[in-house]
Amino acid sequence: MGKRNSLKIVNDPIYGFITIPGRLIFKLIEHPYFQRLRRVSQMGMSYIVYPGAHHTRFHHALGAMFLMNKAVEVLIFKGIKISEEEKEALLIAILLHDIGHGPFSHAMEHSIVENITHEEISLLFMEALNKEFNGSLTLAIAIFKNEYHRNFLHQLISGQLDMDRLDYLRRDSFYTGVSEGSVNSERLIAMLNVVDDSLVVEEKGIYSVEKFIVARRLMYWQVYLHKTGIVAEQLLMRVLKRAKELTQNGVSLKASTDLDYFLNTSVEITDFNDEVLRKFSKLDDYDIIGAMKSWQYHDDFVLRELSLMLLNRDLLKVKLKKKKISEVKISAEKEKVMHQHNLSAHEASYFVFTGSISNQAYRMDKDTINLVTKTGKVIDVAKASDQLNLEALSNEVVKYYLCYPKKN
Amino acid sequence: MGKRNSLKIVNDPIYGFITIPGRLIFKLIEHPYFQRLRRVSQMGMSYIVYPGAHHTRFHHALGAMFLMNKAVEVLIFKGIKISEEEKEALLIAILLHDIGHGPFSHAMEHSIVENITHEEISLLFMEALNKEFNGSLTLAIAIFKNEYHRNFLHQLISGQLDMDRLDYLRRDSFYTGVSEGSVNSERLIAMLNVVDDSLVVEEKGIYSVEKFIVARRLMYWQVYLHKTGIVAEQLLMRVLKRAKELTQNGVSLKASTDLDYFLNTSVEITDFNDEVLRKFSKLDDYDIIGAMKSWQYHDDFVLRELSLMLLNRDLLKVKLKKKKISEVKISAEKEKVMHQHNLSAHEASYFVFTGSISNQAYRMDKDTINLVTKTGKVIDVAKASDQLNLEALSNEVVKYYLCYPKKN
Amino acid sequence: MGKRNSLKIVNDPIYGFITIPGRLIFKLIEHPYFQRLRRVSQMGMSYIVYPGAHHTRFHHALGAMFLMNKAVEVLIFKGIKISEEEKEALLIAILLHDIGHGPFSHAMEHSIVENITHEEISLLFMEALNKEFNGSLTLAIAIFKNEYHRNFLHQLISGQLDMDRLDYLRRDSFYTGVSEGSVNSERLIAMLNVVDDSLVVEEKGIYSVEKFIVARRLMYWQVYLHKTGIVAEQLLMRVLKRAKELTQNGVSLKASTDLDYFLNTSVEITDFNDEVLRKFSKLDDYDIIGAMKSWQYHDDFVLRELSLMLLNRDLLKVKLKKKKISEVKISAEKEKVMHQHNLSAHEASYFVFTGSISNQAYRMDKDTINLVTKTGKVIDVAKASDQLNLEALSNEVVKYYLCYPKKN
Amino acid sequence: MGKRNSLKIVNDPIYGFITIPGRLIFKLIEHPYFQRLRRVSQMGMSYIVYPGAHHTRFHHALGAMFLMNKAVEVLIFKGIKISEEEKEALLIAILLHDIGHGPFSHAMEHSIVENITHEEISLLFMEALNKEFNGSLTLAIAIFKNEYHRNFLHQLISGQLDMDRLDYLRRDSFYTGVSEGSVNSERLIAMLNVVDDSLVVEEKGIYSVEKFIVARRLMYWQVYLHKTGIVAEQLLMRVLKRAKELTQNGVSLKASTDLDYFLNTSVEITDFNDEVLRKFSKLDDYDIIGAMKSWQYHDDFVLRELSLMLLNRDLLKVKLKKKKISEVKISAEKEKVMHQHNLSAHEASYFVFTGSISNQAYRMDKDTINLVTKTGKVIDVAKASDQLNLEALSNEVVKYYLCYPKKN
Repeated sequence: MGKRNSLKIVNDPIYGFITIPGRLIFKLIEHPYFQRLRRVSQMGMSYIVYPGAHHTRFHHALGAMFLMNKAVEVLIFKGIKISEEEKEALLIAILLHDIGHGPFSHAMEHSIVENITHEEISLLFMEALNKEFNGSLTLAIAIFKNEYHRNFLHQLISGQLDMDRLDYLRRDSFYTGVSEGSVNSERLIAMLNVVDDSLVVEEKGIYSVEKFIVARRLMYWQVYLHKTGIVAEQLLMRVLKRAKELTQNGVSLKASTDLDYFLNTSVEITDFNDEVLRKFSKLDDYDIIGAMKSWQYHDDFVLRELSLMLLNRDLLKVKLKKKKISEVKISAEKEKVMHQHNLSAHEASYFVFTGSISNQAYRMDKDTINLVTKTGKVIDVAKASDQLNLEALSNEVVKYYLCYPKKN
Repeated sequence: MGKRNSLKIVNDPIYGFITIPGRLIFKLIEHPYFQRLRRVSQMGMSYIVYPGAHHTRFHHALGAMFLMNKAVEVLIFKGIKISEEEKEALLIAILLHDIGHGPFSHAMEHSIVENITHEEISLLFMEALNKEFNGSLTLAIAIFKNEYHRNFLHQLISGQLDMDRLDYLRRDSFYTGVSEGSVNSERLIAMLNVVDDSLVVEEKGIYSVEKFIVARRLMYWQVYLHKTGIVAEQLLMRVLKRAKELTQNGVSLKASTDLDYFLNTSVEITDFNDEVLRKFSKLDDYDIIGAMKSWQYHDDFVLRELSLMLLNRDLLKVKLKKKKISEVKISAEKEKVMHQHNLSAHEASYFVFTGSISNQAYRMDKDTINLVTKTGKVIDVAKASDQLNLEALSNEVVKYYLCYPKKN
Repeated sequence: MGKRNSLKIVNDPIYGFITIPGRLIFKLIEHPYFQRLRRVSQMGMSYIVYPGAHHTRFHHALGAMFLMNKAVEVLIFKGIKISEEEKEALLIAILLHDIGHGPFSHAMEHSIVENITHEEISLLFMEALNKEFNGSLTLAIAIFKNEYHRNFLHQLISGQLDMDRLDYLRRDSFYTGVSEGSVNSERLIAMLNVVDDSLVVEEKGIYSVEKFIVARRLMYWQVYLHKTGIVAEQLLMRVLKRAKELTQNGVSLKASTDLDYFLNTSVEITDFNDEVLRKFSKLDDYDIIGAMKSWQYHDDFVLRELSLMLLNRDLLKVKLKKKKISEVKISAEKEKVMHQHNLSAHEASYFVFTGSISNQAYRMDKDTINLVTKTGKVIDVAKASDQLNLEALSNEVVKYYLCYPKKN
Repeated sequence: MGKRNSLKIVNDPIYGFITIPGRLIFKLIEHPYFQRLRRVSQMGMSYIVYPGAHHTRFHHALGAMFLMNKAVEVLIFKGIKISEEEKEALLIAILLHDIGHGPFSHAMEHSIVENITHEEISLLFMEALNKEFNGSLTLAIAIFKNEYHRNFLHQLISGQLDMDRLDYLRRDSFYTGVSEGSVNSERLIAMLNVVDDSLVVEEKGIYSVEKFIVARRLMYWQVYLHKTGIVAEQLLMRVLKRAKELTQNGVSLKASTDLDYFLNTSVEITDFNDEVLRKFSKLDDYDIIGAMKSWQYHDDFVLRELSLMLLNRDLLKVKLKKKKISEVKISAEKEKVMHQHNLSAHEASYFVFTGSISNQAYRMDKDTINLVTKTGKVIDVAKASDQLNLEALSNEVVKYYLCYPKKN
């Protein structure tokens, strides 16, 4: 009998199976740092609009690794040299690219910790794991930081057509059921090639690239920037901000041990020592929602009401406008809330606020998608497209929202 | 312009869209009692084996309602009379059939509350909602309790081919990616009919019924009774049991306000007054995992270790046997644990335990699946099948598991 | 037992089931005129590029009828009045809209018959069937001809978002496996409405409409206008043209009885009496390929070689250019062929020829897709789109091809 | 730029893409012998019941080759040694395993040629190609004939779980839309292993194997042996038999050049010289249907009526019984036909006939499916299954049909 290779297989509704390619990667997946991602929702609060959207960072990371494996196979098939070490480093880098995400993915970056991106925290995790695994992540880290001499390897991790994007667009489309947003990841990968150390798409793939850009645009406006999802995410950030504010004013709040630490402490990137990283590695969606389960009974009106809104999905009203919301309009809404609930202006600002969302379907200034013709000429897809005006798509679209209570 | 009917549409990756059919049902879905189901996992801890399995009771309930709507359409098309009132009652009854599920679906029934099934609690919720909605759920409740004179309506809610089962098998197969377990719900529904007030399947559907039974059997052994899932569920029940034990011995534990109540109080069915129901309606998966986030630091060895095992997916070892595990074997394993960690026999029993799992693919004693021939004759599918030995499938299969720590 | 409604169900890999809604429609489907469509390929010779593309006009017509049924349900749900008679007429009109297609769909229009579109022949079939079914198709015909007073009913049959298009784009994408071309027909239908007797799409559907236009564009360039498919279709037309030419010059050719008639006779629209229609109703793909099976042995070089090329998929070479092919280039290639095979210039033109293909992704001059805002305002989607430059997409793109033998 | 490997990619709606792995295989696919399979329907006349079932032997052969490639990868991953030569031979053998199929797959074997199976003809084709390609198919032929010393390689071509079966069950289920019949080919392949030179399935795959057997059984009874499909196939065989009978009695019939040869000549396996093989290689579905297009006007009542029945899908009535049809019943029906249409008994037997269909879901006598336990023990799946009575499934089920005209 062929020895049952000890490597494992994971079920995936999208790709069928994902094979875990090697012992080191298996150990990284088993590590508590990575297991935590099982409890971090990939799409934050979007499940409030799309009830199927409960997939996790854990599953997405495995999916991106699966696609990376495909991409490496395709490129090798086309004669691009990629060594075994480079391949493993690519798989590790894509597996861990999101490991620094806090609870609900993005909400945390702007509330619990301060001025830190999840990429920075991902890097801290990778370095900690590199220590633990005796330097075996060194090449992965170099590629992740774009310090390795082969540029296209980094582009597979982070670029217009990276494996992260090719998995999350497909996966988010799948779980939300917004099938128009689906991207044919395998076909795009099949058309990748490398010219002058840069990723390119074979010319005949132009319509697939166009469709990729349009599908992505659709996902942004219909899903990621759906106004109800926006309100929910804003409320989530505000409930955490209020909790921190109260805690730092000496008010006692129930919270899990580690969430308690972050509510009591201001943490910036320079504070992120091993101890803080370890605490951060314990946080996930359950700490946040778990705390709100107690906060819904708290004496503080703001904390209580925000928690209830999220738990009962009884959110603020939201209006989307093409122009900035006037100060007059905002003040008027705030006044109503202050008066009705006897709140300060500061407290009312938790219930009446404005902001903007924006999306740029395609960027022409940097990191363009390039096509390669049969004769080897490289051209920006926006210039190659005979008709679909990709230049028009490179304009940023901005919309402004106003949130305020339903029943004033 | 045709007036935009105020009714809503929900995206579903499986059926495409689910239309909310009417204002009363829309209000029931918006109710906090029902919204809670967004935070109750349909498959408990199964995501530990199948990382896609994060779908919720909320989504399943909507899916079952979608199928019920199809079934009613099919039966009316075939000339069965179903009034508008009966139809709405069916939709409500299937929507709410699982509303009594506690956190992680089944684990709760055997730990937090005592000797209460989720069906009983579902009924309590329905009755509370009936009060709130001025009696509009009365017919739904009668059908749910099988007190309405038309038997087949109850069978659509609860029976061998009820809409609950047709949705959850399909949905669980979809989200786990175990595609062999998939059931063609729409085809089975298309072949339903009613004879003598009982649901039957048209004869030509015999192969679909056979395949339904085999797919369901596969889902049981491969998914629901997967040994790793079993360990996780057992650990979850034990962590709650330990928490309750400690609390009732006066040890202080962090927990959300409502979980705290259930840890401090013995609740049986007779204790379930409005107040208790309201508290129960606040509990979901997040209270449990949220509490474990603090318990992982608790002084109590048992509580701490069990919490860590679940959070880090570093579970007990499990063996499946066809025979009962011998007392000798169990005692030996317990001894090792007691000795190694200096535990009492009672404490060790949290880490070494045995139990059984069983499945009966088809029951011949009651509630059989009946076929109807073209001439109107009704026969049990187990008798009609020319070859697939369904009688054999009606034997119960029992397996015994032994759980114990990995590294003794 | 609910009487088994005598109406039938047809399996469809795309929609699951298609129910035949009523006895008249069932009879129309059973009619030999309609059964013939089982032997007319939906995508002509495209299977030469996409081996899955063997679906038929028969299946497409059923699919379009299925979608029409959905569309009528949606519009009625939104309060648009559509009577039972209008509904049946819509279903019939869409079912029969393509019944006039000749063998290989489009190739026939330009070779066997002369200056006749398949729509004209479809109408002749409908009128013949109307006679046979005692006038029950009168309303369907009026809607088909746009002579009925309710304009939007005709738009469902023939317009930018008609059920024909919504089915064929989806179906062709499905069977070719070009999944990027897939159109979410059900979602587009769910967003239809009627304002001032015209079909409109609800405003929030804007991204779906954009994606529909881009997917359609992709299907054109990647599938329908694939250069290998173009050569095959051109060869098919030429083999028929040659056969007709030879026949009319008195050369004897094997052919089925009815193909024989059309090879011997010039048929224009005015010649299409009942007898001719009956003969036409006997023609399908099998007459053409069947004849080529004998023509591959014919003495005539042109007829023989063209037949062999198609049968063995050993086609002409094809080049696509953005500019017209120069006469010089064409002449040079012709000369080579004349010389090599000792052919006349006329004969050589069967092997060396040029032509153009073109596609306009969106038309702004007529029959635009209109959106309706929540306040009831109607706007052209090309004006509403904030960013995707649909005006650019309304330019026609033309490409020129040159076909010539491989081995000169 | 990585050199675009000259190898081609084919779109497949089921697997996404099929890569053509190497130049020799590419040339085999381009060969007219193989291209012919584009015009041989995989499921014969089944499209008369399932309108989606128009896929071809060509597509199936490519699909089976795709799966073979997967299987080889899996086995190599598990440590089974398979050389590059063996791999190519496996791919060629599976690609060509069905190349000997005549028009409509099975109908031909029993009418046009006599006492020849399609496997015998496949072998003749392979040998002819081996000559043409200078012996490069020698190893493929040895494996196909089971003359190579490694038995499991042959089992991948022909056995209970061969790639032929794993593709056709999946493909036929896909195109018919009978989704219950779908087989998870990739999962079964992922669980293959080799013990003592024989293919085995890993023990945990037991439920998948069970489900495979049940799905296959369902496909047989619901699709392959669907009574309407049976009538159509029987009529097809009979129309050919009649054509041959008439031809050999000197009656002149229109037919393509090569069909003409086979109508005029009795061909047994010993007659199959190069010339006959070449003629056979020209026959496909189009010759048959193409001829019927003329035969529908023939003077012979039998030939004409059978042709019309098939072309207009106006078939005989069919009854399925568990017991043999009595001679009395058959005679009575024949009498009616003889009397009504003034036919001889022989002629009437074309319209009234009986026969049997049978299926054995699992065979225990030979070529069983074996499981291998973790400890390396090999057991027949029928013995391993704890509950699903596979022994019962090994009984052959026989049904008897009677066909006779609708309107007597």
